[in-house]
Amino acid sequence: MAPESADDSVLVDARRLERFVFTAFSALGLSESNARDAADVLVKSDVYGIESHGVPRLAGYVGRLRNGSIEGNPEVVVVHELPSTALVDGANGVGMVVGKRAMEIAIRKAEATGAGFVSVRNSSHFGIAGYYARMALEHDMIGFCMTNVGSGGATPATGGRTGFFGTNPIAVAAPTGTPPAFVMDFATTVVASGKLQIAQRRGQEVPLGWVVDSEGNQSTNPADRHGGGYILPLGGMRETSGHKGYGLLLLVDILSGVLSGAAVGATATKLTPEGARAEQARSDGAGSNTGHFFGALRVDGFRPVDEFKAQMDEMMSVIRGSERLPGWERIFVHGEPEWEAERDRLENGIPLDRPTYDSLVKVAKDLDIPLDVDL
Amino acid sequence: MAPESADDSVLVDARRLERFVFTAFSALGLSESNARDAADVLVKSDVYGIESHGVPRLAGYVGRLRNGSIEGNPEVVVVHELPSTALVDGANGVGMVVGKRAMEIAIRKAEATGAGFVSVRNSSHFGIAGYYARMALEHDMIGFCMTNVGSGGATPATGGRTGFFGTNPIAVAAPTGTPPAFVMDFATTVVASGKLQIAQRRGQEVPLGWVVDSEGNQSTNPADRHGGGYILPLGGMRETSGHKGYGLLLLVDILSGVLSGAAVGATATKLTPEGARAEQARSDGAGSNTGHFFGALRVDGFRPVDEFKAQMDEMMSVIRGSERLPGWERIFVHGEPEWEAERDRLENGIPLDRPTYDSLVKVAKDLDIPLDVDL
Repeated sequence: MAPESADDSVLVDARRLERFVFTAFSALGLSESNARDAADVLVKSDVYGIESHGVPRLAGYVGRLRNGSIEGNPEVVVVHELPSTALVDGANGVGMVVGKRAMEIAIRKAEATGAGFVSVRNSSHFGIAGYYARMALEHDMIGFCMTNVGSGGATPATGGRTGFFGTNPIAVAAPTGTPPAFVMDFATTVVASGKLQIAQRRGQEVPLGWVVDSEGNQSTNPADRHGGGYILPLGGMRETSGHKGYGLLLLVDILSGVLSGAAVGATATKLTPEGARAEQARSDGAGSNTGHFFGALRVDGFRPVDEFKAQMDEMMSVIRGSERLPGWERIFVHGEPEWEAERDRLENGIPLDRPTYDSLVKVAKDLDIPLDVDL
Repeated sequence: MAPESADDSVLVDARRLERFVFTAFSALGLSESNARDAADVLVKSDVYGIESHGVPRLAGYVGRLRNGSIEGNPEVVVVHELPSTALVDGANGVGMVVGKRAMEIAIRKAEATGAGFVSVRNSSHFGIAGYYARMALEHDMIGFCMTNVGSGGATPATGGRTGFFGTNPIAVAAPTGTPPAFVMDFATTVVASGKLQIAQRRGQEVPLGWVVDSEGNQSTNPADRHGGGYILPLGGMRETSGHKGYGLLLLVDILSGVLSGAAVGATATKLTPEGARAEQARSDGAGSNTGHFFGALRVDGFRPVDEFKAQMDEMMSVIRGSERLPGWERIFVHGEPEWEAERDRLENGIPLDRPTYDSLVKVAKDLDIPLDVDL
């Protein structure tokens, strides 16, 4: 959620913001290392400029931890494994703690064999997928991460009307010699839900290709996604290959949901008596049984790291330097906007919009901790 | 390439067509097993109804084998490996032979460790990516395949004007209990180049969102992709998230090109003296140095195969049976159209359009082999 207007936003210090979030999670009973991990994932999102997933969501995590619907110190266990694979049970833990633990397992397996892949069940919302993919970079590995979030059913299959898929993000990170690294991280729907919420709040229209109404017609009204409409998959309508985005949505659900035994889609879980009970338990405040998928590949399992990085740098440089269309000032490579935001925001502070800042004030009051983050 | 009209097409028998292609490859010096592999990949494409990649391309392969620009019996070698990874050199071989060999290596590694990933350099066009992903299915594995084909530069980065990426397909196959299996296989551009060729030949307009002209404006004229225009990445223009498709294009080039040391993009290879020489050699008829990426994950490296398949079946059944938008008769899952085409075409024959049939007549004449495929 971007600031409503520049006037309305509050500049905060990144390190003190992270300290505040750490203190909040500590107050909720998370161990020092769990609170540190959860705070790091959350605030990195704000530092990278991905405001939909950072501290604007803190109050949500706090609420779920307080009412016991997620566990702050989960006993994350490997249920089954082979040298290069593992099934991990997240013990209904806060997603950031489960996610870091599971990606560490993938990296350890890749160190041993060249490749490590971990599918996770019984977890919860884990913040930005890109965080976990990035963890591979310092090991000179290529990192992968997916999650079937929001299986409340934002988007149906092509031709369908019943919401089935969440926004199911895919993230991949690959090292370069010269920063920034390649980091792609995006919802496999056309846009994430947060962008529509902002447009709706501001009374703005959205571009054609984002939303259809309950009759399946394209609409520029963001509110039309409710009451039978929905957010389109990447690719948009069928004639512009929306079925490819539908395939990616399905892929994320297969690797992070079906492969782990996590909840898959809004409707599927309701089909069986067991699923119906789970849905009921969920709406009563129990775990979401969110699934994740993590992967790591050692670059030197294929070719020498320095050769790989040199060719990455060359490719990125050719792309950045190539001729531009009229009206385009710059060509970006994935990971570059976040890298620039990071340098800017660590130095000059993070702008939080007023509702987000107010939500932090409330968290501080509820947990009886000080909020001292303003620049 | 679909038939220009029903009247104009010729029905041929699938098994005799495969025999003909096998005989053609044998006549060009391929060993019995190489000719069998190459014919199987090519004709499966026609059997699945993916007419852009089947026997319509036979004359192209024949031409490249005859002029020596690709090798019919390549010595495919593992250059470097770890228990779960390998770099493979395709020895400038015909892509179908290299591809099958490399995917077999990925599967063997997955048998041993749970995961196997292989990046391939120095190969050539290998037909449909889905063929190789499907090879994982009979081993109860999830299969992955990508290739940076057509690095002649169909599509630039978002905001760019210089063609850089090919159509860079991604394929993933996952087993189900009840057929068909999940098989997605698509270009990461909005559409594959073949669809535009057909529209242009027929003088038809294409939907908005496929092509931009040389000024970066959307166009319904398929010819506008030439002379400075291009095919858009999946997602279309920037405002409908074309940068996500650009990310997928880049991902395919990283995993199949940079990770292996294959050619990457049209422009990058020209940057260095070595690259410029390679480009020159290529236009003189030498190898394309195409890259591929293959992967296999053992389902039982995560959870029992029967549980996985049962949940896949349930999910597919929910999606197929869900409520439809007005005007939609059916909801498809990826892999289903190909499965139905296969059953129909093995029984009732494969319709080849006249230009394709004529190209087979010419191949038969050039190689002095009989063409006896008509139903």
